Amino acid sequence: MKNYKFQNATKILFGRGMEQCVGEEILPYGKKVLFHHYGDDFIRNSEIYKRVVHSLKESGLEIFELTGVQPNPVLSKVKEGIELCKREKIDFILALGGGSVIDSSKAIGLGAVYDGDVWDHYTKKHIIQESLPVGVVLTIAATGSESSAGSVITNEDGHIKLLGSNGHSRPVFAIMNPEVTFTVPRYPMAVGGVDMMSHVMERYFTNEPNVELTDRLCEATLRTIINNLPRTLENPADYNARSEIVCAGNLAHNGVLDCGRTPDWACHFISHILGGFTNLAHGATLSILTPHWMEYVYHANVEKFAQFAVRVWDIEYDEKAPEKTALGGIEALRTFWKGLGVPLTLTEAGVNCDQLEKIAELVVEDGPVGNVRKLYKEDVLNILKACV
Amino acid sequence: MKNYKFQNATKILFGRGMEQCVGEEILPYGKKVLFHHYGDDFIRNSEIYKRVVHSLKESGLEIFELTGVQPNPVLSKVKEGIELCKREKIDFILALGGGSVIDSSKAIGLGAVYDGDVWDHYTKKHIIQESLPVGVVLTIAATGSESSAGSVITNEDGHIKLLGSNGHSRPVFAIMNPEVTFTVPRYPMAVGGVDMMSHVMERYFTNEPNVELTDRLCEATLRTIINNLPRTLENPADYNARSEIVCAGNLAHNGVLDCGRTPDWACHFISHILGGFTNLAHGATLSILTPHWMEYVYHANVEKFAQFAVRVWDIEYDEKAPEKTALGGIEALRTFWKGLGVPLTLTEAGVNCDQLEKIAELVVEDGPVGNVRKLYKEDVLNILKACV
Repeated sequence: MKNYKFQNATKILFGRGMEQCVGEEILPYGKKVLFHHYGDDFIRNSEIYKRVVHSLKESGLEIFELTGVQPNPVLSKVKEGIELCKREKIDFILALGGGSVIDSSKAIGLGAVYDGDVWDHYTKKHIIQESLPVGVVLTIAATGSESSAGSVITNEDGHIKLLGSNGHSRPVFAIMNPEVTFTVPRYPMAVGGVDMMSHVMERYFTNEPNVELTDRLCEATLRTIINNLPRTLENPADYNARSEIVCAGNLAHNGVLDCGRTPDWACHFISHILGGFTNLAHGATLSILTPHWMEYVYHANVEKFAQFAVRVWDIEYDEKAPEKTALGGIEALRTFWKGLGVPLTLTEAGVNCDQLEKIAELVVEDGPVGNVRKLYKEDVLNILKACV
Repeated sequence: MKNYKFQNATKILFGRGMEQCVGEEILPYGKKVLFHHYGDDFIRNSEIYKRVVHSLKESGLEIFELTGVQPNPVLSKVKEGIELCKREKIDFILALGGGSVIDSSKAIGLGAVYDGDVWDHYTKKHIIQESLPVGVVLTIAATGSESSAGSVITNEDGHIKLLGSNGHSRPVFAIMNPEVTFTVPRYPMAVGGVDMMSHVMERYFTNEPNVELTDRLCEATLRTIINNLPRTLENPADYNARSEIVCAGNLAHNGVLDCGRTPDWACHFISHILGGFTNLAHGATLSILTPHWMEYVYHANVEKFAQFAVRVWDIEYDEKAPEKTALGGIEALRTFWKGLGVPLTLTEAGVNCDQLEKIAELVVEDGPVGNVRKLYKEDVLNILKACV
């Protein structure tokens, strides 16, 4: 186990009706609230929108709405928000939505207290060491951004999608009412589940030895998702299954599962670049990439992949052929994802495969990626080609 | 799953050498530090003591030592600390030790900002809503107090041992270096492990349905303790095993495993009263009580106890006789604890059993205890008699 520092102060408010607390939770931070959301008719006519606005007004808060967040949140909208925050001296940013709205809010929070260009934070030119406080009312469980330190922003100028990570970006609270997610359609729910599982697996697959507790916590989280995700697709109003998914999605990315480990993140790295080129949902890029990545790297740590097969998928350990066990786990994952209806190849997802070389080049621009096995340009290209 | 609110902002600094950060971590809170510890020769001659003092001095902090904490920390020492804090205008309390020192520090922290008698907080006469900041350098992993909200203090005037729980009492940081625990002798290590397991099981055994994720997290934590605790007893300098135990002990009581559940806590309730009468180590009262409590209550939730047997102890599920499976799990726990050398009966622990009725009376003074099965005076007495 590696040395580590861990802190996550996000206050979680979980369950039915918890959105009624939103005004009260914001009050200690000030009066002027930037209310950030998608802004389409669906959200404006939703019960959750009405209840949040009601709670904000009841607490006497002044609301400044900023709408029009896109699925891959863009820098131009972030800049619009920063300008609004500075002009109106906003005290607090409230995100109503999923990962895109939350990430956009985090970026606005950083930019609002910084004199330079917020993009500097994402290019690592200047790490911003403070933020306006951000709160979240979650409408879809997937990215775990509601209590994570990171945010992913796309700079339209060049399709560059970059991650900025910073403890100051952790939301001060996250309100998670599973009922609110009942209306999330099947496909976003499925790719959201893939993203969660990927968050766990990026941490699980490591060459760091002696990480038994977090190994087992990862396995517990994966099994819970595997057990409950299909139930949410079958019956969208299954409160119990939704509850498990909402909580698992949060745990998958709140930092607990990282402790003492060296995560991999190769699939996420490739996914971000691939997503910038294709506009595929983040989870769809991951469902395509992950099993192919696994097949490419598992030789580097057969025992870990065999453990995954045994403990997550109940596959019997074959002492004479641990490789066979390992491959069985990868196959089980693929079969499970196939059942969810998410794409497993680029062709299936309708992606033009002309630019794979360019993508591979961008992935390793700052050096090789991954930990289980270090991936250079050629490796990334091999994986992408296998994904065709 | 029940609605819940969860927040734990304690910063964890885990690993070799992390105590070097202690001065730096305290600096933002002020200059005057109450340094609270056992104060015996063992601690004063220890490497960790020297390194902590060095770090405090290097950061230019002013140290006020308060020593002489007892295994069941007492109110008189707490009051001494409060007086010192008020007189010297202390900014920060640093606990170097295990649960006793940490709990004593938490109580001092509460009392230092309160004009009345700090005991009011423990009797629930007045809940103190703030605290001086407390930081921890952990020397024994057991109680999980290093990031929990609670503290247990004994009022010598009547042997009353009470729990006060309050988010404001969570330490602002906890430094956990497994090497520091190498010198913990076998018995405290074993009963500490029992306490950890009990913290998990008090949460695990609940009648709250639909708590799959936290069920699995509890099982993951228990399996990790079961796998590593004997290794720490066999080889005290096994850094990897100690690391797992230190992290599991923290997770067992940091609040994550509570989320959405109704915990039981009957064994802890009885343990606190029993401890006040016998001065047995907290973990020893739990190793005696828990299996007998289980045998007394398992009928109320056979499926949960059977799940415990299957998932924690790898016992095969007997569909025709789930009760048999459940009892198998209880027996496996008892066998495991026997192997650690902790007492399983009051007689074995040399306890005079004259006062069991009085103990049972005190346990239910404020009403029945427990959740899996509500225990009234007669039930508590039955369990205590079974423990003889």
